[in-house]
Parts: sequence; structure tokens; C-alpha cells
Amino acid sequence: MNLQNDLLLKAARGEKTERTPVWLMRQAGRILPEYRAVRSSLSGFIELVKTPELAAEVTIQPVDILGVDAAIIFSDILVIPEAMGLPYEMVEKKGPFFPKTIHTAADVDQLKVANPEDLSYVTEAIKITKKELAGRVPLIGFTGAPWTLMSYMVEGSGSKTFSKARHMLYTQPEVAHKLLQKITDSIIYYVKSQIAAGADLIQIFDSWAGVLPPLQYEEFSLKYIRQICDAIEEVPVTVFAKGAFFALESLGKLNCDTIGLDWNMKVAESRDRIGGAKTLQGNLDPCALYGSFQEIEKATKSMLDEFEGGSHIANLGHGVYPDVDPEKVKCFIQTVKEYSSR
Amino acid sequence: MNLQNDLLLKAARGEKTERTPVWLMRQAGRILPEYRAVRSSLSGFIELVKTPELAAEVTIQPVDILGVDAAIIFSDILVIPEAMGLPYEMVEKKGPFFPKTIHTAADVDQLKVANPEDLSYVTEAIKITKKELAGRVPLIGFTGAPWTLMSYMVEGSGSKTFSKARHMLYTQPEVAHKLLQKITDSIIYYVKSQIAAGADLIQIFDSWAGVLPPLQYEEFSLKYIRQICDAIEEVPVTVFAKGAFFALESLGKLNCDTIGLDWNMKVAESRDRIGGAKTLQGNLDPCALYGSFQEIEKATKSMLDEFEGGSHIANLGHGVYPDVDPEKVKCFIQTVKEYSSR
Repeated sequence: MNLQNDLLLKAARGEKTERTPVWLMRQAGRILPEYRAVRSSLSGFIELVKTPELAAEVTIQPVDILGVDAAIIFSDILVIPEAMGLPYEMVEKKGPFFPKTIHTAADVDQLKVANPEDLSYVTEAIKITKKELAGRVPLIGFTGAPWTLMSYMVEGSGSKTFSKARHMLYTQPEVAHKLLQKITDSIIYYVKSQIAAGADLIQIFDSWAGVLPPLQYEEFSLKYIRQICDAIEEVPVTVFAKGAFFALESLGKLNCDTIGLDWNMKVAESRDRIGGAKTLQGNLDPCALYGSFQEIEKATKSMLDEFEGGSHIANLGHGVYPDVDPEKVKCFIQTVKEYSSR
Repeated sequence: MNLQNDLLLKAARGEKTERTPVWLMRQAGRILPEYRAVRSSLSGFIELVKTPELAAEVTIQPVDILGVDAAIIFSDILVIPEAMGLPYEMVEKKGPFFPKTIHTAADVDQLKVANPEDLSYVTEAIKITKKELAGRVPLIGFTGAPWTLMSYMVEGSGSKTFSKARHMLYTQPEVAHKLLQKITDSIIYYVKSQIAAGADLIQIFDSWAGVLPPLQYEEFSLKYIRQICDAIEEVPVTVFAKGAFFALESLGKLNCDTIGLDWNMKVAESRDRIGGAKTLQGNLDPCALYGSFQEIEKATKSMLDEFEGGSHIANLGHGVYPDVDPEKVKCFIQTVKEYSSR
């Protein structure tokens, strides 16, 4: 089906567009009352992820309500560990928790490479979403990066330092590599199945990139992200490695189309480091949306000015925070649309 | 009293030393069984901070046991908010918690500028420590940076995003500035009293530097760190702004002697950005101490090689983690001493 609005895909490929496309990480869920209404009818977050009709519904909400230029499938990065045999719980206000974690080579051996069929609830949600979107905007599929998924699988939950996961890199590097390869193989099957189901672009989230020293980041994270990028030929790929300022040059050499910037990264300098061949995505501070409408307009315009002269997909520098007023999000989106059409 | 080992102070001033001085952030407390023995005799962390004889005892332990080239006074960055009228609790395994937090200009008005007399338990601990050290090594005094202290005072606890504290920067910047100035004034009195009591160097910890976008970091953090640096003329000053890779050029222009690097920062590049006039401190990944003795030696030597050619104080890139074997810490220290004496 032809897309009526293909700004995101054009910008990702570095083609000229009549204006800058805009969407928000975490736009599906969190901030919309319409999302909370769907969510409250269920026992929890994971049930919503596993109910394709409802996942599709909350995926489309921000397209209808906020006017973004792309939908991103409502799901979770931790569906992969679960499909590998390591289930998790989502603890309200605390985040993910794994009752069982990975410590030894034997633990890794017991994991399986995820079978896309075990993740058919995601591909089903993609198919429903594509049908209901009817070509209005592209649909983004996504995955966690291998290092980020490994962090949770070893640590068992979120952490300020992820020192247990990093412990394994120093004490059992061969176990870490074995685990990372198994996760990577799982991810490649998974993103391929998302693309087959209709995903128009794949974003890889390396949320915990920022806890690794530069050399370890190359060895334990980039090596595997590279495999994923090399395996995807069908659609554009975006890599968002939060906190990996030290790896921008290496990220620029990946076989991908777009690099996401967080709100700490200076735009001009990042472009120099990444190189001009990539589209950049980002990077307004999510907290800027706490400001007044006037301040949001100003901050958004100033961000667009910074990205001027290179291919750009407007976004925040991190997922939108749960307590942001949807009207403020609309102001951000509207400002991008109007100001970049000049 | 003349110092028998003044390597730290010489290196901080950029003078040539016969070898690289070494100490560890968080060396006092956490890892030593001797510390835990003292700690377990008390009701909690804060009681230890407020008992000068015992604070002095645990301050000196790492000098005796580990052989570091400096002591750092055992205390907490949150003694300042408490002295300003905002008490906190230290919740085991969770971290600090403030029952009352700052939301409005009226809340800021109710705070007082900390009177050094309310912090006499720290200066008392410094005097006792200096006496008992008897010139063996220098004693480091310290403070949290204004932005980091404000983060806790507004947020009420640790946080992944500090979005409440950052909310204030966008919605009530004038309240934030008022609060930051009051904290800064308190800090200046406080560090002056530490120096008067015998502190040989002051380190400023900006632990939450990394959550701010570059422009806000200049406006809400560096501006106040600058005031503190400018106010201290008596002793060398070290600024450790964790995660502030984007501000290294500005940090290099501060009126201070040493800049701390975290383990994400590449050494050569950081030196280029900071400029050659400053001593650098750091920056081994704290998790490297989970490795074998042989691997620790290798990683430590490789770190020393990276810092070769400029003034350097060896340290980790963050506080030592609580579950590190003290023998591994000794291996790190010994390797620095031997390898840098070549």
C-alpha cells in the first residue's frame, strides 16, 4: 500500500522533504488519557503488549490525537528475553523485574534463540495497525539492542550502574559473548518478522549504552548492533544509543540510515563526528515540554535551527515523560510542522 | 605541619612528581570490613557522619589498609541541605530521602544559608583526622555541586531522570536560581571552614551533571561551580562533573586545578577539550576491579599509558563499588605506584 505521508522514510533515506517529519519516542502510551482508558481495562502492561487489537489501538492513538508523522508499534524491548525463556514482570512505578537471571554459561545454554512464532502477538499487532492506518503514516518497528537486553537479563531489573551486568563483561567475557550472540540471533529473526508483517522502519534502542567504557562498548555492544544493521536490507534502520557520545564516530560507520541523539549531545559536533551521510533524529530535552507554550515553540525552533543543513527527523532526546500535558506535545509537533515548512 | 607525602598536591598543581598519586572516590566506607565494624556499632550512616571521632577513624582506614596517597574526609554531600533546614534520611540499599522538598519561592525563602557552626561535626572530624594522620598524606575535603544538591532538594531522592528538579528549571527558573545561589553561599562558607580546619584540597562533586542539556548546564550548574572555584584561593580544587562530556571545554576554563574524568570519557580527547593547563583525575571503570589480579594490572597500566604526557592523579572513574574485594583495590593502587615509578 502506498503511504500518503512518507516524510519519515524519505528523511531517513536522506532525501529532501517539504518539511521535517516528527514523532516522539514513547508516544504510544504514557501520556494520553485515551491510552490510560485502554490500559485500565487490563491487568497490566504486559497484557496490553500481548493483546494485538489493543496494542494496535494505542499505537494509532497518537497519529489521530497528536498528529505525528509516524506510528511506533506499542510493545516492549523485553519481549525478546521472554521469548528466549526468561520471563519478566512489570512492577508498577518501578519497572521490569526478572525472577530468574543469567549468571553462568549453563544459564545461557538453557536459553533458546527466540522463535518469531513466540512473538506472533507483536507481528499480529503490526498487521492490524498497518491495516487500520491504511497508509496514513509509516509504522516503526523496534527492538532493544543486545547489550541493553543482556543488561536486564543479568541484572534482573533497572539499575543506576548495571554493575552486575558489567561484572560479567570483566569476569566471564566469553559467557557474555555467547549470550549476546544468542540475543542478536533472536533479534534478527524478530525484526525480520516485524518487517514481513509491515514495519516500514526499524529502530534499535541501546538504552544502557552510556554505562560502558568506550572499548567495551565496541566489543560488547556495537559488534552486535552491526550484525543487526547488516542483516536488515528491506527498510531503513535507526540506531539510538543513549549516552554513547564517545561512540558517535563508530555509530556513523554502521550500515544504518539514522542515528538518534539524546538531549546531552550537541548537534553540530555530533554531525561532525557521525559524518554527513546519516540522518539525525532528536533531540529536544523531554523536560522542555514542561515549559509554557511560548517557551516550547522557542525551544523547538531553536532545535530545528541547530539541525538545519542536514537530514533530520524531529523527536525528543528521550522518551516523552509520563506527566507531560498532551497539549504541550501537540505544540511541539505543530511547531516542527510549521517552522520547518518555511 | 609538613606533609611526608605531598604527591597529590604537587600533581594537582601540575608539578612533576616521582610517580602518579592514587586514591579512590568512596575509599572511606563501603568496601572495608574495618569500616563495616565501626558502622555496625551505630544506628546508621548519618550517625557515623555526625560522630567526628568515628568519621576520622574510617577516613584514615584506607590510608593504613590500602596505602592510598590521600585521605578524603568521611562525610556526605547532603549535609549542606540539612544545615540549610532540609533534613534527610539515608534509606538502607535505596539511598537518600527528603521528607520535605522544595517547590516554591516561599520554600526557598524558608531555607537559611548554612552556618558553618551547624556543620562543626565535619570540621571537627577534619581536625581529628589531620592530627591522627600526622602529615602522612594530604586530606581532601569535599562538597556536592549546587546543581546536584538542588536535584535532591527538589526531587526528594535519587532518580533516573531527575525530571522534577529539571521541571523547575523550565517552569520556575528564577526560583531555581534563588535556590542555587543560597546553596552556593552555603557551600562557600562550608568549604572555607573545611580549609580552616585543615583540608588540603577541595573536591566538588557534580554527580548529576549528566542529566542536563549543554546550555542549561552552563546556566544552572557551571555558573555556580565557578563562584565556588573563584572563592577558594587557599588550596587546590578538583571538579568532578560526572557525565558532563559536553562541558569539558567550559570545565577547562574554571579557576580550578584538576578535572575528574568518568570512565566513559576518552582520555586524549578529554585532555584536548579541557586544555593542557589542568591536571586530570581518573578514570578506570570501577567494574574493572571485578577482574582477576592480572587483568586489573593490565587495565591499570593501560589507563596510566593513556594519561602519559600530562599531569595525572590516578583514580577510578566513579566511586568504588561496595562489593569490590579490598585485595583488588590494593592491586590497583600497587600497580599505579610501581608502574608510574618507572
